[in-house]
Amino acid sequence: MFTKRFSRPGTAPATLTPFAPGEALKPTFRLIEYGPEHVEEQALDSFESIINAPSEGKVRWLDMCGLGDVEALKSLGEKFQLHPLALEDVLHVGQRPKVEPYADHLFIVAQMIYLQPNGALRTEQVSMFLLQGILITIQEEPLHDVFGPVRDRIRSGRGFIRKSGADYLAYALLDAIVDHCFPILESLGESMEEIETELLSEPSKKCVHALHSHRRTLMQLRRFVWPERDVVSLLLHEESGLIAASTRVFLRDCYDHTIQIMDLVESYRDVAAGLLEMYLSSVSLKTNEIMRVLTVISSVFIPLTFVAGVYGMNFSQSSEKGEFSMNMPELHQPWGYPACLILMALIAIGQILFFKRKKWL
Amino acid sequence: MFTKRFSRPGTAPATLTPFAPGEALKPTFRLIEYGPEHVEEQALDSFESIINAPSEGKVRWLDMCGLGDVEALKSLGEKFQLHPLALEDVLHVGQRPKVEPYADHLFIVAQMIYLQPNGALRTEQVSMFLLQGILITIQEEPLHDVFGPVRDRIRSGRGFIRKSGADYLAYALLDAIVDHCFPILESLGESMEEIETELLSEPSKKCVHALHSHRRTLMQLRRFVWPERDVVSLLLHEESGLIAASTRVFLRDCYDHTIQIMDLVESYRDVAAGLLEMYLSSVSLKTNEIMRVLTVISSVFIPLTFVAGVYGMNFSQSSEKGEFSMNMPELHQPWGYPACLILMALIAIGQILFFKRKKWL
Amino acid sequence: MFTKRFSRPGTAPATLTPFAPGEALKPTFRLIEYGPEHVEEQALDSFESIINAPSEGKVRWLDMCGLGDVEALKSLGEKFQLHPLALEDVLHVGQRPKVEPYADHLFIVAQMIYLQPNGALRTEQVSMFLLQGILITIQEEPLHDVFGPVRDRIRSGRGFIRKSGADYLAYALLDAIVDHCFPILESLGESMEEIETELLSEPSKKCVHALHSHRRTLMQLRRFVWPERDVVSLLLHEESGLIAASTRVFLRDCYDHTIQIMDLVESYRDVAAGLLEMYLSSVSLKTNEIMRVLTVISSVFIPLTFVAGVYGMNFSQSSEKGEFSMNMPELHQPWGYPACLILMALIAIGQILFFKRKKWL
Amino acid sequence: MFTKRFSRPGTAPATLTPFAPGEALKPTFRLIEYGPEHVEEQALDSFESIINAPSEGKVRWLDMCGLGDVEALKSLGEKFQLHPLALEDVLHVGQRPKVEPYADHLFIVAQMIYLQPNGALRTEQVSMFLLQGILITIQEEPLHDVFGPVRDRIRSGRGFIRKSGADYLAYALLDAIVDHCFPILESLGESMEEIETELLSEPSKKCVHALHSHRRTLMQLRRFVWPERDVVSLLLHEESGLIAASTRVFLRDCYDHTIQIMDLVESYRDVAAGLLEMYLSSVSLKTNEIMRVLTVISSVFIPLTFVAGVYGMNFSQSSEKGEFSMNMPELHQPWGYPACLILMALIAIGQILFFKRKKWL
Amino acid sequence: MFTKRFSRPGTAPATLTPFAPGEALKPTFRLIEYGPEHVEEQALDSFESIINAPSEGKVRWLDMCGLGDVEALKSLGEKFQLHPLALEDVLHVGQRPKVEPYADHLFIVAQMIYLQPNGALRTEQVSMFLLQGILITIQEEPLHDVFGPVRDRIRSGRGFIRKSGADYLAYALLDAIVDHCFPILESLGESMEEIETELLSEPSKKCVHALHSHRRTLMQLRRFVWPERDVVSLLLHEESGLIAASTRVFLRDCYDHTIQIMDLVESYRDVAAGLLEMYLSSVSLKTNEIMRVLTVISSVFIPLTFVAGVYGMNFSQSSEKGEFSMNMPELHQPWGYPACLILMALIAIGQILFFKRKKWL
Repeated sequence: MFTKRFSRPGTAPATLTPFAPGEALKPTFRLIEYGPEHVEEQALDSFESIINAPSEGKVRWLDMCGLGDVEALKSLGEKFQLHPLALEDVLHVGQRPKVEPYADHLFIVAQMIYLQPNGALRTEQVSMFLLQGILITIQEEPLHDVFGPVRDRIRSGRGFIRKSGADYLAYALLDAIVDHCFPILESLGESMEEIETELLSEPSKKCVHALHSHRRTLMQLRRFVWPERDVVSLLLHEESGLIAASTRVFLRDCYDHTIQIMDLVESYRDVAAGLLEMYLSSVSLKTNEIMRVLTVISSVFIPLTFVAGVYGMNFSQSSEKGEFSMNMPELHQPWGYPACLILMALIAIGQILFFKRKKWL
Repeated sequence: MFTKRFSRPGTAPATLTPFAPGEALKPTFRLIEYGPEHVEEQALDSFESIINAPSEGKVRWLDMCGLGDVEALKSLGEKFQLHPLALEDVLHVGQRPKVEPYADHLFIVAQMIYLQPNGALRTEQVSMFLLQGILITIQEEPLHDVFGPVRDRIRSGRGFIRKSGADYLAYALLDAIVDHCFPILESLGESMEEIETELLSEPSKKCVHALHSHRRTLMQLRRFVWPERDVVSLLLHEESGLIAASTRVFLRDCYDHTIQIMDLVESYRDVAAGLLEMYLSSVSLKTNEIMRVLTVISSVFIPLTFVAGVYGMNFSQSSEKGEFSMNMPELHQPWGYPACLILMALIAIGQILFFKRKKWL
Repeated sequence: MFTKRFSRPGTAPATLTPFAPGEALKPTFRLIEYGPEHVEEQALDSFESIINAPSEGKVRWLDMCGLGDVEALKSLGEKFQLHPLALEDVLHVGQRPKVEPYADHLFIVAQMIYLQPNGALRTEQVSMFLLQGILITIQEEPLHDVFGPVRDRIRSGRGFIRKSGADYLAYALLDAIVDHCFPILESLGESMEEIETELLSEPSKKCVHALHSHRRTLMQLRRFVWPERDVVSLLLHEESGLIAASTRVFLRDCYDHTIQIMDLVESYRDVAAGLLEMYLSSVSLKTNEIMRVLTVISSVFIPLTFVAGVYGMNFSQSSEKGEFSMNMPELHQPWGYPACLILMALIAIGQILFFKRKKWL
Repeated sequence: MFTKRFSRPGTAPATLTPFAPGEALKPTFRLIEYGPEHVEEQALDSFESIINAPSEGKVRWLDMCGLGDVEALKSLGEKFQLHPLALEDVLHVGQRPKVEPYADHLFIVAQMIYLQPNGALRTEQVSMFLLQGILITIQEEPLHDVFGPVRDRIRSGRGFIRKSGADYLAYALLDAIVDHCFPILESLGESMEEIETELLSEPSKKCVHALHSHRRTLMQLRRFVWPERDVVSLLLHEESGLIAASTRVFLRDCYDHTIQIMDLVESYRDVAAGLLEMYLSSVSLKTNEIMRVLTVISSVFIPLTFVAGVYGMNFSQSSEKGEFSMNMPELHQPWGYPACLILMALIAIGQILFFKRKKWL
Repeated sequence: MFTKRFSRPGTAPATLTPFAPGEALKPTFRLIEYGPEHVEEQALDSFESIINAPSEGKVRWLDMCGLGDVEALKSLGEKFQLHPLALEDVLHVGQRPKVEPYADHLFIVAQMIYLQPNGALRTEQVSMFLLQGILITIQEEPLHDVFGPVRDRIRSGRGFIRKSGADYLAYALLDAIVDHCFPILESLGESMEEIETELLSEPSKKCVHALHSHRRTLMQLRRFVWPERDVVSLLLHEESGLIAASTRVFLRDCYDHTIQIMDLVESYRDVAAGLLEMYLSSVSLKTNEIMRVLTVISSVFIPLTFVAGVYGMNFSQSSEKGEFSMNMPELHQPWGYPACLILMALIAIGQILFFKRKKWL
């Protein structure tokens, strides 16, 4: 639940606290350099060697995967003059998505969201530095390759990506991250429709638990997509000159997607709340119905059993001294038993009529 | 519940993903060209032949019905220079209503809402491209001809429509879509009044389910009418020059209608919430009443039955050895039975007085 | 619940749909012309004859009552050049209160609210056209003469009304409509105080129903007073030149009244919600108490009855063959009965102590 | 609950409706005139005599107590040229706190709030007119002398008050009114802490009622302090020239106090809502526990009692004709009774195991 | 719950009310003077001696600990020309965090929040005066040395602190106070995860109480962190010239931390509310289940016991006069007992089938 990494309070700002051994991967680097006409791709263990000289009219995408080496991060920051506070946020994973403009680069934090097999959400922080002609992306783990389709588009030269700058690349990655919510919402929607069908026929504890877990998922989605919407909106109105006008119409499209996701999340929350209410009202109605059956059966038979109990008492009429006795003369009348049965029937009928009038039967 | 169509995350923007075969209709086209003095109407299978030359001072309405042919859509986009991102949104049905200004056209997405016979809402996406003198509308299916009355008005020359431009036509279609909510709300209102009457007399499971389904319907209406209001508002303040000043006063009227619809939706939601609360409080009161009856009957008879049980015990007074016995001398007194009955009556009266004091009787 | 009149979707805007026969009254007209020095009053069946010439420095108030004659409305519109969309809204009664500025007149819609004898709210639409020196008011029915006191003020010359223009007259009528909510709120407040007293002593179904109906009334009040506040606020900041500066200080006073009404409505809603919660918590507490009594009585007597049942069993000690029998030797001990009674008393005391420890007694 | 006084709807604005006899006090007047060097104090029955001439460089504070004399109010208004609408609001007690700027004076309405001995809140309207060098205050009743400490400060010359103008005096009075909420909130906070302790140990009806009454009190406080905050804020940004710059830093302090009061009110409301929820959940848990005990005891003994009942039946084995009988041979076996007791024990043990597995025991 | 200290209403503003003896500590002073090259630290009982002369290009941090000496505070205020209203707020501990700009200094109030060992939150007010080159901090008690790490950073010369001004020092202290919330939230998050696991397996009263106390803690955190966010935001946009541009980028980082804290607090509140709902729904489901078991067992056995009771009645067939009797002939049939047992079995099976159909079994 608490996934934000933080330094001890009082630590100097911009301190890069290393992860505990084993907590983070050793970083690997992948450099893709492309222009309208060509693509060049390199996978390296260190980025020291690759930064020979900036190439004219091309886009360079440096993808770093793994946060296990603070020194590498520090020298990366020095080489590209990235702000130390931004580097600190790269290590403090679990950030809220945000955009921060620095002197000559934009720092973008996004959260990649995906459903784990057990149905819980998991987020992975993706940090991006957008410089003139260069995009540096830093991921935690290479588990879920959301950037694969973008890499394929660069390789194949499909779409606008090879003809556009680093800002378009940043947009394409953000768009891939944002669009990733649609399949999550689709599967949530299907599951909630199943739950609804089940609730209408036979409300069970199991589907309430599923509902609660969906509500939690929706809450988390909401928590990450709201600021992601702000990220896109800020990029859309960014005035640093790093975002080209031609990219803005695509960012507007991406912004529209975040709006649609939020819209779905909010309406699913409403649906989930409505289902829970329906469930609670059906439980309370069912308790009421059970009570009614119990009450009717108990109330009809308890007085009858009492009557039977009375005539099962052993008061003896013939006392020892043969004197007159008031003890249970009914028992010795020839019509005693039928009269008793008729009395019982009358009591039962009276009660049933009473319950009918109360509409409990 | 999840009705938005989307491409696989990572797909290049503006990719037109075709529908699976059988999922969408083969498109048909209908071209209406009109001016103050004349109307001309054509139904065609392809729009290739019809675009000979733009006619001066006239309005051309091209209505495409069916999304099954991606190639047709693509060549439509090329002919009229429609933005590829807008064409993608045409295919990604289930969009939130929106207006997007492009270089020389407005792209409008609206959702036509109608009640299905089973009481559930259904929406159909209507996409419009407003160009200078031309309106292109694209619908999913020709099921529910909400545009029929507008077509009739063009044919008959009634009202302002023949004397106005393509912007007025777009307004007229939007107005027809928006006004379609009034009969839906009227039938909802009537149904909720019936439910209220029923709840006051005899709350049943059935009317709670109806209430829940109405709440869902209201939620959906709200979800589509809010952005539709924004669409009308944006058109009202649009500065592209495609909307004439004379059309704005009508758009203001349409905006007023969206406000009234939202107002009704919100107050129906309040009414529905109030009815549900009333239902829950009446169920809990009823449970309480049932409990009271059960408690009174049980509590009165259980002690009496116990007394009867005691005097039904078989402790024998005359033991084998003729010795003195303390076993149940009451049974052998001549006044035993009446005394026992009087005891029972006293217990019962005592309890009834106790319950009277507690106001349970 | 659905009180808005509307035309069939797709109808041309500004179509004046007549009421069904018998649904609306035949209109009557009343013209009052007044200045600082004189008043002239005429009641007429038709307004055709009366509009001879606009008189200098005077105010003319034309009050039309009844919406049964579409033709009269149409020719009224033509004579005073009222906008056709505004005339349509006059007929579509059940509008949200609003102000619409047209070229040379203001169109004001207000809702007169009054309590019917059965405690339900009823609203009647009052439409006003404010022109230079002329005010045209159109009401549905002359049932509830809220304008009477204003007419009396004109006749008597009391207050500022005779010295002011048509804008002050419009203010005076709006003020009368707004102030009409105070007595409604006063009676609601008194009723809710009674309900509170009753709930504290003896919560009943009846007062919950009254509470629910009050909540509904408050919701309706809120729905109409919010936009009425906007109407007054818009008039206060209107820049058409139809509202004199001297009238604005009075409109500010009227605006203050709408704020006070909303304030009362909101706090009554809070009170009503609090009362309902208190009721629900007291019902649940009462159910709990009833359960406790039932449980204590049942739990004490059920084991005792079981013991009595055991000693009421007919296992016979003396078998046919005179052999040794283990059947119920207790029954034949001289101390059997007292021992049994003591056992029962011990069980009862044990249970009572258990319930005392649980604080159920 | 409804404490606002109002005129009959339709009454001309600025009509001063007198109170019914006995409803309001006959006014008394107190004039304090002070400067840096001196103070002069007069208590009078009428203010006619005292207004000889405005004194240079001094502040005059006229305090009127009692609203029973409409004529006195009217001539006060004429003498100081107070706006008639403001005078009407003086009589219409129960106003929302507000500031209204008029041509040459500010009209301030505040509500003095104090706890009555029975724990309910009471409010008293304080109206102030701030003129150049003169402050006129009008109170309903001299019950609760909140202005006493300010008067003492003037007399003693402590603090800034003697060196400042009428605006500072108005601030000092407002500040006294606002600060009066702190002791109220302190006592509420203490009471709510007691309620919390009680709820945790033994939830009772009494503390729920206390909680409900506190919620009502908080609601009322909120209703009056919100607009009081706006009053201070408006004075802080007032541009009439009646508020000196040196007074603004004090008004900012007073504004800060209103923020702190609102902050406390809001957090108390949250606490109260949380306590109520805790109470309801503990009642429902307790009902559940009671049910569990009842169910366990009933379910264990009811089958046993049935078995005892079976062996208490009087089917006779030896029929009249000496023929073979299947009637209850168990009763005549020597091991019948022990076997029956063992059967009962087995049933009881089985049930207890079942309840143990369900964790009801 | 009510922790704000306040003066008696009506007290003159800026009155420094001393604490009761023993309520506050006698103040101690610590002066740290540092520049890029050196640090000097002094601990003193009185600050009189230390203010020899302001040193050029250095930062002076005067830390006062303890509020027990009003005179010391007063002379501190005189020496540094601190505003009396600000000094009053220093003594009125329990303030809402705020920033107030005065002529030549900024007054900052913050609340240091820490968890007490018993799990409750405690806050301590930290007041700061930021002057040109001087920072004065005033704390209540030296209990929880949150400033220690900052002091260490000054001593060691690590980070930016020695090279920056007094504004950076103020930022560093605020940052330490804000970051202190992260460990609190981390421990809350862990505790809530435990509660969730417990609720899913076995809901108990204990974890509801823990949940309620967490909700209270979150409410308090929210109450203090919201205004702390405003404090940072105001400093970020402060235009007094006391905050250097280079410090603003750090304040932006601190602002981002407050946003993240609020984000966590809000999502924890949602989680807590969801857990409480889940708990309540599981209690109501459990009550329902208990009722079902009770009902099934009671309803099956109560009629059987009645039948047994009937045949336990003592109506005698052989009357004294040997006449014909209708009394209980069944008892004397040889097949009476088996028939009775079969009847009972049929009743039981019928009921079980009924309950099966109702899905209660």
